[in-house]
Amino acid sequence: MEIIKERLTRLRERMKEHRVGVYVIPSSDCHESEYVCAHYRAREYLSGFTGSAGTLVVTMEEAGLWTDGRYFLQAERQLKGTGIRLFRSGEPEVPKIEEYAEQKLSRDSVLGFDGRTMGAHRAETLIRAAEKKGAGVLVTEDLAGQVWENRPEIPDTELYVLDLCYAGEDTKSRLARVRAEMEKIKADVHVLGDLCDIAWLLNIRGGDIPCVPVVLSFLCVTKEDCIWYVREQIMTEEIRQYLKERGVLVRDYEAVYKDLSGLAAGRKVLLDKKNVNYRLLTAVSGQADVIDRRSPAELMKAVKNDTEIRNLRTAHLKEGIAFTRLMYWLKTGAGKETLTERSVAEYLDARRREQEHYVGQSFAPISAYGANGAIVHYSPTEESDAKIEPKGFLLVDAGGHYLEGTTDTTRTFAMGELSLEQKRMFTTVCRGNLNLAYARFLHGCTGYSLDLLCREPLWQAGVDYKHGTGHGVGYLLNVHEGPNAFRWKLPEQEQPAVLEEGMVTTDEPGVYLEGQYGIRTENELLCVKGENGAYGQFMEFEILTLAPIDLDGILPQEMTGTEKAYLNDYHEKVYRALAPHLTEAEREWLRNATRRI
Amino acid sequence: MEIIKERLTRLRERMKEHRVGVYVIPSSDCHESEYVCAHYRAREYLSGFTGSAGTLVVTMEEAGLWTDGRYFLQAERQLKGTGIRLFRSGEPEVPKIEEYAEQKLSRDSVLGFDGRTMGAHRAETLIRAAEKKGAGVLVTEDLAGQVWENRPEIPDTELYVLDLCYAGEDTKSRLARVRAEMEKIKADVHVLGDLCDIAWLLNIRGGDIPCVPVVLSFLCVTKEDCIWYVREQIMTEEIRQYLKERGVLVRDYEAVYKDLSGLAAGRKVLLDKKNVNYRLLTAVSGQADVIDRRSPAELMKAVKNDTEIRNLRTAHLKEGIAFTRLMYWLKTGAGKETLTERSVAEYLDARRREQEHYVGQSFAPISAYGANGAIVHYSPTEESDAKIEPKGFLLVDAGGHYLEGTTDTTRTFAMGELSLEQKRMFTTVCRGNLNLAYARFLHGCTGYSLDLLCREPLWQAGVDYKHGTGHGVGYLLNVHEGPNAFRWKLPEQEQPAVLEEGMVTTDEPGVYLEGQYGIRTENELLCVKGENGAYGQFMEFEILTLAPIDLDGILPQEMTGTEKAYLNDYHEKVYRALAPHLTEAEREWLRNATRRI
Repeated sequence: MEIIKERLTRLRERMKEHRVGVYVIPSSDCHESEYVCAHYRAREYLSGFTGSAGTLVVTMEEAGLWTDGRYFLQAERQLKGTGIRLFRSGEPEVPKIEEYAEQKLSRDSVLGFDGRTMGAHRAETLIRAAEKKGAGVLVTEDLAGQVWENRPEIPDTELYVLDLCYAGEDTKSRLARVRAEMEKIKADVHVLGDLCDIAWLLNIRGGDIPCVPVVLSFLCVTKEDCIWYVREQIMTEEIRQYLKERGVLVRDYEAVYKDLSGLAAGRKVLLDKKNVNYRLLTAVSGQADVIDRRSPAELMKAVKNDTEIRNLRTAHLKEGIAFTRLMYWLKTGAGKETLTERSVAEYLDARRREQEHYVGQSFAPISAYGANGAIVHYSPTEESDAKIEPKGFLLVDAGGHYLEGTTDTTRTFAMGELSLEQKRMFTTVCRGNLNLAYARFLHGCTGYSLDLLCREPLWQAGVDYKHGTGHGVGYLLNVHEGPNAFRWKLPEQEQPAVLEEGMVTTDEPGVYLEGQYGIRTENELLCVKGENGAYGQFMEFEILTLAPIDLDGILPQEMTGTEKAYLNDYHEKVYRALAPHLTEAEREWLRNATRRI
Repeated sequence: MEIIKERLTRLRERMKEHRVGVYVIPSSDCHESEYVCAHYRAREYLSGFTGSAGTLVVTMEEAGLWTDGRYFLQAERQLKGTGIRLFRSGEPEVPKIEEYAEQKLSRDSVLGFDGRTMGAHRAETLIRAAEKKGAGVLVTEDLAGQVWENRPEIPDTELYVLDLCYAGEDTKSRLARVRAEMEKIKADVHVLGDLCDIAWLLNIRGGDIPCVPVVLSFLCVTKEDCIWYVREQIMTEEIRQYLKERGVLVRDYEAVYKDLSGLAAGRKVLLDKKNVNYRLLTAVSGQADVIDRRSPAELMKAVKNDTEIRNLRTAHLKEGIAFTRLMYWLKTGAGKETLTERSVAEYLDARRREQEHYVGQSFAPISAYGANGAIVHYSPTEESDAKIEPKGFLLVDAGGHYLEGTTDTTRTFAMGELSLEQKRMFTTVCRGNLNLAYARFLHGCTGYSLDLLCREPLWQAGVDYKHGTGHGVGYLLNVHEGPNAFRWKLPEQEQPAVLEEGMVTTDEPGVYLEGQYGIRTENELLCVKGENGAYGQFMEFEILTLAPIDLDGILPQEMTGTEKAYLNDYHEKVYRALAPHLTEAEREWLRNATRRI
């Protein structure tokens, strides 16, 4: 931990040079990406905290790390001895970063952050805090980068075109739809900062970010032009030709700032302050007028088309086979060899690699045994890698990218004897999961109306999970995607998205008892149309995920007749889909694992 | 219906004089009150539609009435033959009033409405529509009033002070709390337009609006002063003295416009555009700066204090006795005399009048037999008054004002034989009602998260009710009160209110089959604190309403074990509370009516 202290000391020296009293280091690249490549992990370098979400704030006297409920336990462990204080975002009495900054700033001090790695929306909130105290603002110096020794480069990975048989819609058509939406709100220019929106629009994938096959780039769309700002060195002749045919010009990644600052006054520029960085915003807003709202691409890409849906069913079949083989191995082979969290994750990935069109993992797999399962976003490292014994729970949350789409599945396995309390909790989680999956609702519902169907059985049992019930899933993109989600706490700003036919959202309730165990059961739900009659359009879900829910953890007497029917219905579907693809032994085992209760 | 056509003709003559192309007549007084006294029912006079919600829009060529789902059937019936077109608000393809107005207006026509009976928020939306088309705007002429023959006067009813033993908090304390909130948002002046907010703040009740014991008035609060603008002729020496002791000055109702237009420039005026009329807004905004948001009084009055809660339990005991006596009479006496919808409502009110401190009905009672039950806000008239036969459902939705608070209860009674389908629906409604009432939820939930607990059993059965699941209830004020509510469709603008300890909200799912029958079961729920532990503060409900749910409609086999336990628990509570206050015969009957299933 001394190394962290020493890094912070060097940062403070730079802060002093620039009279910076409060320096803020987010976890972002220039696009507010959720996952970032090593080049942009300044917050991790300076704090030692490796979670995907978190912001470090450094003053001359102290340093604080803000992160959310998923990471409280992990952050506590990783910050130990660094002197960095943990701020639990969302807990009562915990100040927001801007409130903390306001408190620490004064008329003769300066607030600093790197304006390229700070989202415009967050930057504006921070700057307002500085203004309230009459403090200065410095956004042009990457002080963290300046003290970072041996900073990794951005990787030069290969670009490829996602064929129409996977994407289901050509870039020309997608561009036309985006332009039609721009027309509606009278936007002259649309600047896209979100890498997944760009990849979706261009049907191009890359590998600039681990687990998210996208390309660091910006896109500017006008009525006539479409310019892709991307690092020239990764461009190939083939891609250039592909783009040319679709009317897309290529310019260098860094040229976007200068180009945008040259926009004529009065031009109306659509951008989303939540995924455009502050430097980019100020380049635009120097002259032009900003229309701050979600890119139309966000909603369009969330609604999967028929080709994508057909493909997704294939992807989930493949993933289901891999998951089921893992479960078969765990249930029939446990005890015969030494299992560890990492060997389990590796076994699963090996089963995936046997499948056609497998691209890679969609996120770092969680394989968490016993008490590790209570750490919501635990990922086993070489040091932590726990040995799995024939008792308690093993929680595996993992996903894959296939050309046919992206998956995200969690299963919790009973590795042997369970206590009655453990079975009760497992059953309650399963009930929540099923009640949501089999919901029937009128069109117009958002995931905020539906969340409680999943959560209520847990709340009745006096427990809660400190994360959302579900998130949208990208198609060979980020496994976490908006705007659809299942949540219970309404966001303060945004209007939640209505659940539309074709949206895919995860359904992943859990129970986490610190120091004891964790349980989570996660399926992906495709929103489909149901009956349309006198009361309006009813909507339902199709469960895409195909893997047994471990009946060794289920107490049938704690489920209603309807809930048992749901579970039986789901297991029958799982068996029917997977059986033809399994060996005789696996199939026999699966028949029992999906038996009626 | 000819009389309506003739009235519209006279209105159009006036419109022509003023070059008005589109004239809008809402259902409002000068306070956007939900119920209005006869003096302000211009929309009813001109359209014949008697529902509480609806807006009439008249052009030279056509006239349209906008109303919501509660009134579709009623409006259809009442508009027949008038030539007025029904616009079903909220249905797809139905334009909003402002969209319709925009379509009808042009550069050389004028949009007109009476700026005093049009809420500021709605007025601004309409004016934006006119501006888009370059049309003029006329807000100073009450054209509807000008053609209204024999327009009723505002009644001169008596004012009275609500004693501290009922209100639980003195005006001085309430004023201090409001001023503290004004201080927080740096408001110099707070103009209150909502009559219930004012009555709550002053602890004064009157009778200017049927069923809502309030006083037509405005209130202006500054750090030092508090001025009540009220019709001088209803002021008494006693009230004047009471107000003086609390630092409240009295000025004439109409003086408010002039006083506010004289505010110094730069003064910050807190008001809620949703309950302040447009003339008042323009008086203020001529010079001063408007802070448009909910009055702090709204949230304060929604959270009932300990005295109010204690009293409410008493009020519900009284109402429960009355409702139970009605049910006893219906169940044991039916067939012995001729029952009609009105005789039932009258019997219930007579039982209430036997109770101490009864003030009056909190709304026009709904007593709807058979197919009339499907008309959500049906109220029997002399002509419609249906004879009740020994079969099918009778739906009674009624409430009373007591000095101990206001009630709102709905029970649906099986008057004899029911079909299996009717019992299924009745059971489903009961399940929805109970699932919400026995919910357990973390503090922070709004009624938008919880609504689906109630609605889902109905949606699973393929039916819906086209109204909210519940509304807040005033204390000897409007039976419908915000900001708490149970709804599934998120509002576009406002942030829904978090359910706080002390809030009272109704829980009233239903099923309405046009031409057949209607079912609704309504209880009032008091929000109370539950367990507070590692997961946060859990909240629960206490059911305030005390009246049996008719077991003749219940199919126990269609309920889960948990749901049956809920119903048994509730019925046990009802029996225990009511039994000591009933006759021997009633008690015996109640024991059976609340038996365990």
